[in-house]
Amino acid sequence: MSVIKVAILGFGTVGEGVYKTIQSHAEELERVLGRKVEVAAILIKNKQKKRNINEDVLITSDFNEILSLPQLDVVVEAIVGKEPTLTLLKQAIQRGSHIITANKEMFAHHGNELFELAERHKVSIGFEATVAGGIPVIQTLRQLLNVNRVHTVQGILNGTSNFILTEMREKKQSFADALSLAQKKGYAEVDPTNDVEGFDAFYKTMILSRIAFGEEPNWQDVERVGISSITSELIETAEKLGLRFKHIASINKTCSHINAAVKPVLVGKSHPFYSVEGVENAVNVHSDIVGRITLQGPGAGMFPTASAVIEDLVYVCQNQPSNKNFTITTAENNEVKKGNKIELWLIQGLSKNYHHPLITWVAQATDEAAVIQATREEIEELLIQQKATCCFPILGEYEPESKNQEETVAIL
Amino acid sequence: MSVIKVAILGFGTVGEGVYKTIQSHAEELERVLGRKVEVAAILIKNKQKKRNINEDVLITSDFNEILSLPQLDVVVEAIVGKEPTLTLLKQAIQRGSHIITANKEMFAHHGNELFELAERHKVSIGFEATVAGGIPVIQTLRQLLNVNRVHTVQGILNGTSNFILTEMREKKQSFADALSLAQKKGYAEVDPTNDVEGFDAFYKTMILSRIAFGEEPNWQDVERVGISSITSELIETAEKLGLRFKHIASINKTCSHINAAVKPVLVGKSHPFYSVEGVENAVNVHSDIVGRITLQGPGAGMFPTASAVIEDLVYVCQNQPSNKNFTITTAENNEVKKGNKIELWLIQGLSKNYHHPLITWVAQATDEAAVIQATREEIEELLIQQKATCCFPILGEYEPESKNQEETVAIL
Repeated sequence: MSVIKVAILGFGTVGEGVYKTIQSHAEELERVLGRKVEVAAILIKNKQKKRNINEDVLITSDFNEILSLPQLDVVVEAIVGKEPTLTLLKQAIQRGSHIITANKEMFAHHGNELFELAERHKVSIGFEATVAGGIPVIQTLRQLLNVNRVHTVQGILNGTSNFILTEMREKKQSFADALSLAQKKGYAEVDPTNDVEGFDAFYKTMILSRIAFGEEPNWQDVERVGISSITSELIETAEKLGLRFKHIASINKTCSHINAAVKPVLVGKSHPFYSVEGVENAVNVHSDIVGRITLQGPGAGMFPTASAVIEDLVYVCQNQPSNKNFTITTAENNEVKKGNKIELWLIQGLSKNYHHPLITWVAQATDEAAVIQATREEIEELLIQQKATCCFPILGEYEPESKNQEETVAIL
Repeated sequence: MSVIKVAILGFGTVGEGVYKTIQSHAEELERVLGRKVEVAAILIKNKQKKRNINEDVLITSDFNEILSLPQLDVVVEAIVGKEPTLTLLKQAIQRGSHIITANKEMFAHHGNELFELAERHKVSIGFEATVAGGIPVIQTLRQLLNVNRVHTVQGILNGTSNFILTEMREKKQSFADALSLAQKKGYAEVDPTNDVEGFDAFYKTMILSRIAFGEEPNWQDVERVGISSITSELIETAEKLGLRFKHIASINKTCSHINAAVKPVLVGKSHPFYSVEGVENAVNVHSDIVGRITLQGPGAGMFPTASAVIEDLVYVCQNQPSNKNFTITTAENNEVKKGNKIELWLIQGLSKNYHHPLITWVAQATDEAAVIQATREEIEELLIQQKATCCFPILGEYEPESKNQEETVAIL
């Protein structure tokens, strides 16, 4: 019986998780694929470091040694950064290997290029691990929602930001203290910019957009705001109103184009994201036949990410490469243009006595903070006039906390 | 170009939804399948009734007319009851048609029989619509979690029960009033037994068990309790403790056998089922590599159910029939036997002064109701001794409502 030969590039958390899982689930892989799966080689940086790897695996820091192997069916990439990753993966495709990647930054930048090359060389690409860790959102969009026209995708895609927001709320901590705990726990890097300023979520959003809509918005048009400006006071004010801050990526396709944003948003108790806490991720997919479905699960970690890679291994080995790589779905969401839609906002710094025909006051948390109904244009005007210091959109329905919070919230 | 010919059995909510969706999504189906999909025939009871169906569709109450069609690729079954459905579907398989069913009662009873027959005749069976409406839980287990060893599946599988529990809590209604509203809204039948006594959820649980574990527990060993004994007082007591009643199906595979139960359970705020309200359904899948993932969405309704059928249509037409119909996953969950595990319970009728070495008091809601920690055996003993009137298990972690509910809950 023939064997499927795999190379793993990188032996950090993800690479090691994939290696261990291929060993521990050898039986399942053989049953599903009808062939044994064998790790033939691992690309590492430092050959001297001690690692717990079987003796028959080629351990090398020279990718050419891997490319020269007599058989190489799948290359799993678990490195970070755009280069040399892209170059290595292109070489792997040209050699005729399927590739699987967990690298969102590289894949957001160069996914299209890799797909074109893969199509020419008749190999498949697995990229489930680039978005929302172990949650099978890519494959749900790729394999399960074939006929549904997806029009909106929303997600909590950065576990680090969600962990920080949860800590700040639950333990009344400052952003700095919560970030420092996230760093201690290994959830955040020493330089946390990628996570807390929304770059990581942005890359994932672009990948989701491509798989859901077959295309991306112009990157420059996407609003990208991180969580570093969210104070514990703001979180407390929101809590009084029955709202929670979540860092949410949203992509919406209308007839003419794709709108996307990655920013802090408020959600009420009836929203499925309300109880998504800590490092968990969640994705809402809105389609025309089924309506809204929500997928929730671990957004990162050694084994959740390894799970995504291993299930992709089955996918790339079983499926004929085809133009289904990026589904082109024609969405027909004729939603009113965002600017004219009346939405709910948590606003701070607006005087209680401020009256405007377009603004409806919904609930007051403190003298300074309230929930109002207004159009986006109106809100922008208020911010320009400096009548309000800051404001955040509320996603979904808002139910005021009338029962438990009578003393603190006046329902207007 | 050849055409895929479909017959729809039944033209109630589901049948009509499928018919309309095949018309409205003709372009998507053709793009995905590479062939046009055409509804060739519809089986109805009453030929006289006026229906909005194209003239070129054969409308008949005689299934033999459908079987005699020169071409019949897929038969979609949207009738209720075990017979004559089973007989019709067997005939369809024997004729060489793929089948898709939305009928949980029939499929829970006869799924294995149909699968054996389908394997002999080299056709596929789609049954996504039998469980959790539009949520693609069957295909997630069937196509996406191939290598993960699933050990536990939990679900809110009956939208009617969940709607009633939500109404009772939100509007402080009695069970009878909430049921009557569910009937008015068309969520519950005139005879609501199937929904409110847990039979519907039970059938769905058996189907989930087969797809997750390749087998079912003995039906007689499965605890099946409905929601008709849940009073609005109990719901209010739970609310004071920060808990909500949910009607939950759970299946757990240990080395030796499968445990299943369908019954009212309490969940706290940090549980993903806490905010699943109204007719929504949700399923937790716990596997060894990825951990817990949650899928949430519409559990019933014309188009959510049609969505499941239409996506199944793509599945049966694209996939080679194989023994992958029921995945056999070896779960290795060596969890402690239930009886000896210390769990959390909401208990009513136990005197505050009752002391027992195995019982830990966690929080007191009223003089009569409290949250305690105890083993299942201990709880059973208390119920036999009539020291407690009723009790419900709490799923997941419990965080007492310390902040908002100081006056009503004493944290012990």
